[in-house]
Amino acid sequence: MEISLRGRTVQASPIRKFKPYADAAAKAGVKVYFLNIGDPDIPTPQPILEAVRSFDDPILSYGPAQGFLELREEIARYFGGYGISLTPDNVIVTCGGSEAILFAFAAVGDPGDEIVIPEPFYTNYNGYASLADLKIVPLTLKVEDGYRLPPVEEFEAKIGPRTKAVVLCSPNNPTGTVYSREEIGRVIRLALDRGLFLIGDEVYKEFVYDGLRHTSILEFDEAADRTIVVDSISKRFSCCGARIGAAISRNPKVYEALLRFAQARLCPPSIEQRAAIAAYKMGLGYFEPVRREYERRRDVLYEGLSAIPGVVVRKPQGAFYMSVRLPVKDSERFVTWMLTEFRLDNETVMVAPESGFYSTPGKGLDEIRMAYVLKEEDIRRGLAVLKAGLEKYRTAVER
Amino acid sequence: MEISLRGRTVQASPIRKFKPYADAAAKAGVKVYFLNIGDPDIPTPQPILEAVRSFDDPILSYGPAQGFLELREEIARYFGGYGISLTPDNVIVTCGGSEAILFAFAAVGDPGDEIVIPEPFYTNYNGYASLADLKIVPLTLKVEDGYRLPPVEEFEAKIGPRTKAVVLCSPNNPTGTVYSREEIGRVIRLALDRGLFLIGDEVYKEFVYDGLRHTSILEFDEAADRTIVVDSISKRFSCCGARIGAAISRNPKVYEALLRFAQARLCPPSIEQRAAIAAYKMGLGYFEPVRREYERRRDVLYEGLSAIPGVVVRKPQGAFYMSVRLPVKDSERFVTWMLTEFRLDNETVMVAPESGFYSTPGKGLDEIRMAYVLKEEDIRRGLAVLKAGLEKYRTAVER
Repeated sequence: MEISLRGRTVQASPIRKFKPYADAAAKAGVKVYFLNIGDPDIPTPQPILEAVRSFDDPILSYGPAQGFLELREEIARYFGGYGISLTPDNVIVTCGGSEAILFAFAAVGDPGDEIVIPEPFYTNYNGYASLADLKIVPLTLKVEDGYRLPPVEEFEAKIGPRTKAVVLCSPNNPTGTVYSREEIGRVIRLALDRGLFLIGDEVYKEFVYDGLRHTSILEFDEAADRTIVVDSISKRFSCCGARIGAAISRNPKVYEALLRFAQARLCPPSIEQRAAIAAYKMGLGYFEPVRREYERRRDVLYEGLSAIPGVVVRKPQGAFYMSVRLPVKDSERFVTWMLTEFRLDNETVMVAPESGFYSTPGKGLDEIRMAYVLKEEDIRRGLAVLKAGLEKYRTAVER
Repeated sequence: MEISLRGRTVQASPIRKFKPYADAAAKAGVKVYFLNIGDPDIPTPQPILEAVRSFDDPILSYGPAQGFLELREEIARYFGGYGISLTPDNVIVTCGGSEAILFAFAAVGDPGDEIVIPEPFYTNYNGYASLADLKIVPLTLKVEDGYRLPPVEEFEAKIGPRTKAVVLCSPNNPTGTVYSREEIGRVIRLALDRGLFLIGDEVYKEFVYDGLRHTSILEFDEAADRTIVVDSISKRFSCCGARIGAAISRNPKVYEALLRFAQARLCPPSIEQRAAIAAYKMGLGYFEPVRREYERRRDVLYEGLSAIPGVVVRKPQGAFYMSVRLPVKDSERFVTWMLTEFRLDNETVMVAPESGFYSTPGKGLDEIRMAYVLKEEDIRRGLAVLKAGLEKYRTAVER
């Protein structure tokens, strides 16, 4: 009697696995700057919290499998604000963007089928690929190129008879890269040429800097039958614990499959759906101050990192992550060392080793992902600690 | 470009697919008695609603993947109240019992592997078997036997080289049967003999009548390494929309796999976890009046059905469902007719055709599932409508 192969091989969260070291440090009175995980410190908007607090149904009962109509209308209206025409019947509310990933994966592929994903990529795609038994075929991007998409030939080289879809995350987690309309258009044409689905993880849509604008895969009407968008309110409204996302498709067959998967799990959480409705009713005006705050933080983190000898980083345009090459051989060892041994004035910093964001073995060993989800002064302090740690590590540990 | 086979073949909810007819009837001013779905009318306990309303974190942030420690402690304490010794590290909080089913399925089997389930069974196992690409091997039970478990030889006959687990739901959805300690013990021994996992769906644990007590698969210490329990607060505390369940295992390898699947989706909803903590803190005393209320309803429904000519039903001992054989050829047609054509004093009744609860084709065509989740007077009225409808249907439609 043995557990399943997928149960034995599914990736443990590379972001969370160093948490015990951080907890031990914190318990010992050390101040830890958490720059490892995208859990924003921006307060959850009051309308969300008020919707929760004013929940007054006598029975907390099931909602529809596809989510409340009112929420699906609000989501359609939100996309409409960006010139993307959706109806509520293109939208399935999910338990977090996470569930939308699972449903999308299961709708496009059967066990053993392949999906092409530029790496480094959001590490939880691995967990869902294991669960759905799909094979992720990575396409390696480079920090020196700012993790931009390569020419279409490099995608072509990854496509085989069992390839069912390409996954694009923009603004990207973990690199922060925002793909241009031209870059995304190239992949759209590839999907059309090769009969593939295109899954767009666009949960960081609102976090785009330098005057750029986000391009959604939904803007390409010629590919309306093959684009599936993974969406979420977690980062958009600083409410990661709400677990409200959406899977969006204009292909009736895809929608029907997503809906049936959704029916198996009955419904998304009712209270947070009400909260999400209140969130969307705030309108697009809510986002600008938040966006500016993250843009400022990005500048601080980027400038600070650029000033550290041996660090390689390109200025990302979106999300709230940065992929960074460090002058170390093994960032897992470095992260562990920082949490367990290094202190600067009784402070240390936690970042995420990036090897877990690659599926090609051996890649990303000298890279980390940083999330700029802390206040500017904390980022500055975290940078000072990181810089001092790196110096000491290179002279005392990895000589 | 086609969607996946599982996306094309996953079962549409047989409970929800008649909903549009019911909605149309309701819209036309017809009073519909909903005896089709297990969405209780018992008010959600005040401590749950108060916990929701008093949520005062400034940021609705991620919790741990395995759920809040305090909730896992409460769940362990709850089981302790039934003599089952668990630690918080045996418990993973899930997004509803639904997610626990998915994680359990994925932990025991790989695509193409088989799980044996007595039928009729909770229809959503089908959706999760599709998603995880497991094959359900049904073992058909009979209304005349009160849907009790057959001799072990009948289980043995269903076990092949790819069988990984047996799923037992007790108290059962849709039959209401509560398996005895002896019945469950037989399956435990089978699991030990044949090296199988045993997944126990015990979400109706509190709903047991006639002075019987529920036997959990966790009570069999000799099988501690192979039992996985699917649990949920949905029915227990009349809060189906909360989406808080649990997967429970004392096998460290199983637990690790469940945890990694859980990490991929980050965390269960934070607010409802707080609500669940408040619910468990009410203690076991909460359940008795609720249990008695359902027992009374069961008696009313059972006596009413027994008095209708041609109806075959055995008195079930638990949950709030009853599987019933009707004197009709096709219960889907009957249910549709009831919703679209039959009215008694401008009222009709909705029940669930039971063929969707079988995976053997052609089974259950003359059966329905009824959920006694309405007040006694509504059940009595629903019975009168059902009786009149059946008479008319048999003389006017299915002559």
